[in-house]
Amino acid sequence: MAHTRSYLAAFQGEKGAFSHSAALKLLGAHTRTTGYASFKDVFEALGSGSVDYGVVPIENTLHGSIHENYDYLLEYNFAISGETSVRISHHLIAMPGVRFRSIHHVYSHPVAINQCRVFFWKYKKIQPFPFYDTAGSVKMLTEQKLPNAGALASEAAAEIYGGVILKRNVEDDRMNFTRFFLLTKQATPRRRARGEWKTSVVFSTENVPGALFKAMACFALRDVNLTKIESRPLRGKPWEYLFYVDMRGHKDDKPVRSALAHLTETTQFFRILGSYRPTP
Amino acid sequence: MAHTRSYLAAFQGEKGAFSHSAALKLLGAHTRTTGYASFKDVFEALGSGSVDYGVVPIENTLHGSIHENYDYLLEYNFAISGETSVRISHHLIAMPGVRFRSIHHVYSHPVAINQCRVFFWKYKKIQPFPFYDTAGSVKMLTEQKLPNAGALASEAAAEIYGGVILKRNVEDDRMNFTRFFLLTKQATPRRRARGEWKTSVVFSTENVPGALFKAMACFALRDVNLTKIESRPLRGKPWEYLFYVDMRGHKDDKPVRSALAHLTETTQFFRILGSYRPTP
Repeated sequence: MAHTRSYLAAFQGEKGAFSHSAALKLLGAHTRTTGYASFKDVFEALGSGSVDYGVVPIENTLHGSIHENYDYLLEYNFAISGETSVRISHHLIAMPGVRFRSIHHVYSHPVAINQCRVFFWKYKKIQPFPFYDTAGSVKMLTEQKLPNAGALASEAAAEIYGGVILKRNVEDDRMNFTRFFLLTKQATPRRRARGEWKTSVVFSTENVPGALFKAMACFALRDVNLTKIESRPLRGKPWEYLFYVDMRGHKDDKPVRSALAHLTETTQFFRILGSYRPTP
Repeated sequence: MAHTRSYLAAFQGEKGAFSHSAALKLLGAHTRTTGYASFKDVFEALGSGSVDYGVVPIENTLHGSIHENYDYLLEYNFAISGETSVRISHHLIAMPGVRFRSIHHVYSHPVAINQCRVFFWKYKKIQPFPFYDTAGSVKMLTEQKLPNAGALASEAAAEIYGGVILKRNVEDDRMNFTRFFLLTKQATPRRRARGEWKTSVVFSTENVPGALFKAMACFALRDVNLTKIESRPLRGKPWEYLFYVDMRGHKDDKPVRSALAHLTETTQFFRILGSYRPTP
């Protein structure tokens, strides 16, 4: 999507965080962005009109779905207007001039530390210290000019805060990607763009045997390809569930439109979350 | 299930925790139990033979699945041998003799504090303090004889540590239940017990359109009633998933046996996690 520079996008974390990279990838490198402390703050900022876009992670290939954001998708009723995925690479970053052998402690978000266990196992003299944010740990150590400290964060964080990368890709597992949604208050009208579209919906079925199978049949009978199904508990109805489904195609495409019309016959609750073009 | 008293069951937390209540409900009030610091420790204890049973929470009606334990089910390859659910009720507990009006701070697990927001909104002079465990917070305040402190925990925790309940059911939402699995190293042979059985399986499908629909058809074509479906990311294969499915019936019942035989034709990976009788 191309935009003028006056638009503002909210993400969670400090500049240089993976959510920040996702925002720039989705909206362009010159987009104005603003970081918030929590995912809920990002949704609130979009709801209040303080920002034009919200960018939130929705799933990671190692850890699974970020359920808090699935729940907010339902609560806030915004439109999913874009999607991208970002490769999560952790680099060891330090102040300029600091050598690897002088580093005795390394700061990062606990999830990042946990994704670099082999590194800490290999270099036993280096102690990990949990910090609130990956990019924030680089910001802290360059601001405080810490001579014996490193941080695990992205290349963007090193650039933004003036750190240098001492070791690249210290993460254990390279198949580490996070998928992000671009959110807007209103659904964007369909563009004439060709190529790939995806659609996300959320629904609950009646609590009868075979209800989910019937819902899935709506898609299978029209060869609509599902890419993800996620269940979340339905509040106030113990052991009943909401289902979030992602599929290939635009909601106005004939097979998707027919599948969704059929789906409304078999569901108790149904909402289209958005049709969007993945940004490669 | 009835057992002799010599068996030992592992759970996460302190005695009086909801996992402890689940263990007693599953195995009888006189079962010997031992608390561990983490869920992983419970799985390790069962694997090493230190305990005969592990009891772990698998989902909560407000928060959803406990994915860490889903992942361990796959990793450790134990058998699910029982299931129960426990109503989560938080009571305000204090030292004997302490009056409600003298309480200025309340300790509990952050999840419990978050489930009692209305209480803290109503009594603004009372400050919440996060603690590592619900039952552990009662243990701490009775051991240290804190005169101005309360804890949010279960009735069992009040009894075990000699606290008194000052206010009952201070949780916001009463539809708050947690479902627990009873785990054993080996699957128990089928008993002749009648009544309700459930079976849990985990599988991955081929990454082709309609694969999950075909898997679901195995059950629907035999009227096997699915009670839960949960997806988790497949490590090393970004955007592919494992599915955990719970169903009514024993794995040796004709319709379930046929459905699972059919399922093996359409899945890449398939494992039966266990057949078990729910403890009401």
